[in-house]
Amino acid sequence: MSIQLGSNQEPPKQERSAETRRQLLDAAADELLDGGFARFTTHGVARRAGISRGAQQHHFPHKHRLVTAAVHHLAERSLQQLEGITSDGSLNSTRRVLDALFEQYAGPLFAAMLDLSLAARADEQLRDAVQREEHTVNRMIDEWAHRRLTGCDDAPADFDELFAMAISTVRGVAVLRLLGHSQESVQRQWKYTRDQLLRLLVENRS
Amino acid sequence: MSIQLGSNQEPPKQERSAETRRQLLDAAADELLDGGFARFTTHGVARRAGISRGAQQHHFPHKHRLVTAAVHHLAERSLQQLEGITSDGSLNSTRRVLDALFEQYAGPLFAAMLDLSLAARADEQLRDAVQREEHTVNRMIDEWAHRRLTGCDDAPADFDELFAMAISTVRGVAVLRLLGHSQESVQRQWKYTRDQLLRLLVENRS
Repeated sequence: MSIQLGSNQEPPKQERSAETRRQLLDAAADELLDGGFARFTTHGVARRAGISRGAQQHHFPHKHRLVTAAVHHLAERSLQQLEGITSDGSLNSTRRVLDALFEQYAGPLFAAMLDLSLAARADEQLRDAVQREEHTVNRMIDEWAHRRLTGCDDAPADFDELFAMAISTVRGVAVLRLLGHSQESVQRQWKYTRDQLLRLLVENRS
Repeated sequence: MSIQLGSNQEPPKQERSAETRRQLLDAAADELLDGGFARFTTHGVARRAGISRGAQQHHFPHKHRLVTAAVHHLAERSLQQLEGITSDGSLNSTRRVLDALFEQYAGPLFAAMLDLSLAARADEQLRDAVQREEHTVNRMIDEWAHRRLTGCDDAPADFDELFAMAISTVRGVAVLRLLGHSQESVQRQWKYTRDQLLRLLVENRS
């Protein structure tokens, strides 16, 4: 939605509110990525966003709600990038899809999701909210990948199981990066794994 | 080493020191598993172990050293259990090895390792110690699995790469449990994945 402003006009209240909310979510996502949930505070987020505590509390009265909304926000930003990656079912485009999926699991969104899930183990209040959000984010990424890695009629009967296993394999290699393994060794393992997955997914499909 | 004690004799000083150290490591491991690194404090560990602050500081003056020693201690406890699981290369024993490996990655040791690795991203001092320990623990578990899943002369040239990929697949499914997915759905995916890995590992070997 675009808005037309005269030189002396303020944006309408609803617009300002949406903008404040977006600024809070950007700041919350950055706060989470920089220090993890352990250092995440609502006043830290308000300060980072340059927004008053009152406005922050109006939009997100609860820390748990802010932190899960921040993860959702990160997931939406990721999906926007992912939507630009298309596939025609060829080896090359399937390779690009797998690479993009790998970067998701080795990147900030998944690191934040894991961090929250681990923190939620010792925090009952957080647990429900995080699990719900994790399922949503997981489904968003899964569905994106599924749309690009399937899409033909002659897939084998167990394609969905194969697909879930392939995603887990991607996740399992990507986690090595979060565990601090060297870029070089993770990349080497990823290249080998990607070729195996390509064979599994493309050969099983055609 | 066994020691003979008369009824009025205290254990020798060296023995008492080793026992104090073991109690501290047990308590530190439990502290880490209960609250994660975010809530981990050296005085919390001393209190849990019922050991004086002075003795704790004597054994582990630095929090970072205590926390990585606790992870190492957890890994040694895990390996002791794993050593009891042998393999004769048959389908059944390979399945047991894969199940045990899965439980490691879905369990407390790996959760603690991930938690520390994520915390280390925002803590430079912690980073080196955690990365070193992560490599040690990773190698311990890897070597255990490697000894049980290989061991014949006619393995294909890329068996080590296949093996690393299989381990990553196990890790990728197991992480779903840490992410809070239901026991049931993780177990379903694991059973399918295990059968695929058995085919990959056993068929490629014989």
